[in-house]
Amino acid sequence: MESTLIGTSKWDLDTPALCVDLDVFERNIATMQTKLAAMHVASRPHAKSHRCPAVARRQLAAGSIGICAAKISEAEVFSANGIAPILMTTSNVSANKIRRAMALRKANPQFIQAVDYPQNARDLDAAAAASGIVADVVVDVAIGTRSGVPAGDQALALAQLVDTLPHLTLRGLICYDGSAQHIKGFTHRRDQTLKRFEPSLATYERFTRAGLSTEIFSGGGTGTYNILPQASSALTDVQVGSYVFMDCQYLEIGGESNEQVYTDFDPSLTVLTTVLNTYFARSITTDAGAKALTLNRPGPWVIGEKGFAYDAGSDEFGVITYETAEKSYTVGDTLELIVPHCDPVVNEYDQMYAIRNGRVEAVWPILARGHSQ
Amino acid sequence: MESTLIGTSKWDLDTPALCVDLDVFERNIATMQTKLAAMHVASRPHAKSHRCPAVARRQLAAGSIGICAAKISEAEVFSANGIAPILMTTSNVSANKIRRAMALRKANPQFIQAVDYPQNARDLDAAAAASGIVADVVVDVAIGTRSGVPAGDQALALAQLVDTLPHLTLRGLICYDGSAQHIKGFTHRRDQTLKRFEPSLATYERFTRAGLSTEIFSGGGTGTYNILPQASSALTDVQVGSYVFMDCQYLEIGGESNEQVYTDFDPSLTVLTTVLNTYFARSITTDAGAKALTLNRPGPWVIGEKGFAYDAGSDEFGVITYETAEKSYTVGDTLELIVPHCDPVVNEYDQMYAIRNGRVEAVWPILARGHSQ
Repeated sequence: MESTLIGTSKWDLDTPALCVDLDVFERNIATMQTKLAAMHVASRPHAKSHRCPAVARRQLAAGSIGICAAKISEAEVFSANGIAPILMTTSNVSANKIRRAMALRKANPQFIQAVDYPQNARDLDAAAAASGIVADVVVDVAIGTRSGVPAGDQALALAQLVDTLPHLTLRGLICYDGSAQHIKGFTHRRDQTLKRFEPSLATYERFTRAGLSTEIFSGGGTGTYNILPQASSALTDVQVGSYVFMDCQYLEIGGESNEQVYTDFDPSLTVLTTVLNTYFARSITTDAGAKALTLNRPGPWVIGEKGFAYDAGSDEFGVITYETAEKSYTVGDTLELIVPHCDPVVNEYDQMYAIRNGRVEAVWPILARGHSQ
Repeated sequence: MESTLIGTSKWDLDTPALCVDLDVFERNIATMQTKLAAMHVASRPHAKSHRCPAVARRQLAAGSIGICAAKISEAEVFSANGIAPILMTTSNVSANKIRRAMALRKANPQFIQAVDYPQNARDLDAAAAASGIVADVVVDVAIGTRSGVPAGDQALALAQLVDTLPHLTLRGLICYDGSAQHIKGFTHRRDQTLKRFEPSLATYERFTRAGLSTEIFSGGGTGTYNILPQASSALTDVQVGSYVFMDCQYLEIGGESNEQVYTDFDPSLTVLTTVLNTYFARSITTDAGAKALTLNRPGPWVIGEKGFAYDAGSDEFGVITYETAEKSYTVGDTLELIVPHCDPVVNEYDQMYAIRNGRVEAVWPILARGHSQ
């Protein structure tokens, strides 16, 4: 059915519709590759942002050295769809997920998984032995208190344990700082990021002194891709995700050249929504609520309007309130929105429309949508 | 693959896992039917809460007179899966959605759709004529300022217009008060609901005096199912949705017999999540974040713990902070959560596990998941 949409104007799509503007999307990918090349660091984009093999293929074609995945079910989808170099950044702890991880590793020798507990390393080793394989792992070194093994002694001891286990191969360490990405103001973000990264860097140095593999030394995201390489020339790659799409949250953090707006990358991802109701003063109801946009803040931005407050708090409806509008709106009009936070918005849709010059060039299935296991 | 899970203990499911406890679920349905029967009003459950034909079938089997749907794509899925009596509570305004609605009405004579603008009524009439059918519509009378035609003169004029259009059949009116459902405290909620309903009731009376069909006079939800029938014995049915599952938001509103906790129905819907990290003091990281639980407030409640604050703010991780715990937790443990707000949580999953006595009795596909068009 969807193939019949090729060539359709985006304004004729049923709404809510998730769209990606290909010119902007391709420019974002090219910009990232150019900027990273100048810093001698690679990209290993996080696929949790798009959950879409069609996007991953374009990232790899542009020079990314692999993708990251957050969940085993996500990694399985990408691997089954021809994306081989996958680094899973979360540990697999249940017996069943460990079995799935080993089956994936057996099918795809380029699958690498994170470990952050000694017992988990032993469990992975036993499962690898049972599967007749040697599995590749990286040590996840915590920045903050969300995931990973604390930097320093515990991280070193874990890496040394992995190094002794016969059915595991240590490939290095990952150090992702989720809290740093959205710190507002480039200078503040840089200072905080570098400071928070110090224990990871010291841990990296202890790995090298101990003769442990640091073939992978990965960290950073869209908000810190141009900061973390300043910390160490040993950093191998950044786990950038949102740069391909951008969203209101990232636009608000400010960049190196503009402290107010992050202009390194442009918003390629939008949601089209239809006006359903204009009976009430200074209020417009649309067909895109929380199931189409999530509850992330700031709310969606209506392209072409400055003073609109878009509340996606209702599950099925968006409610815009405003004092003045650039245009007058009537029922049936289509609005285009920049999304609050790209990752979870993409996860609400089964497909995205790839748009070029206002027309559908392709329909990309979001094959790992909902793959949160 | 999923059929192999029948009989599995829920504690052995890969997580995050969406589960519905069948004993509680069936009791909630029976309770609603018993209470409504005593008030001589029917249920027309809103399928936007579950997006799952397996649930709708059980509601109809228990005596519901039909279901409501919020979106045309949702209605299409239910109709295609054997659920015939469908009332779509949102208007279809684009040409393509009107075409889809007419195709659905042609295939399923029990499909009824809402209208709230004169132009839309004319568009529906023309599309029905082009399809060679007479389509059934209800006038959506606004309570608040989100959707619907304002009560009073405009609603009456719209109904009269519909009544004159040869390819539409007026079936009555719907008046859903989305804002009333979560007003805390039963007495306050009752007073507000009845007051806010007055213009709709007056409109209903004008419909009857004008000889217009009021065969359907529908309103109310899980928070007001036992309030709205007090307003008028003419109310035909309530559009209850969340009662089958319940969630933290509804538990907090208080009920007639308990001002603090809404005990009319019990939580049947839970998400199972696995502990991933306990390195950090008074903190637990789990594998269920915003993609598994949404950002709705209050955050999820951990069953068996009173002092846990569960933050689902990260896309992929849940972070629990606490001062004291009933039990000690270790990596790999499974926690069971009552969900913040059932409708959008269900929409994150492709399936729910139907659990009886702790074991999987069935796997229900959430076939209308993501159907927000």
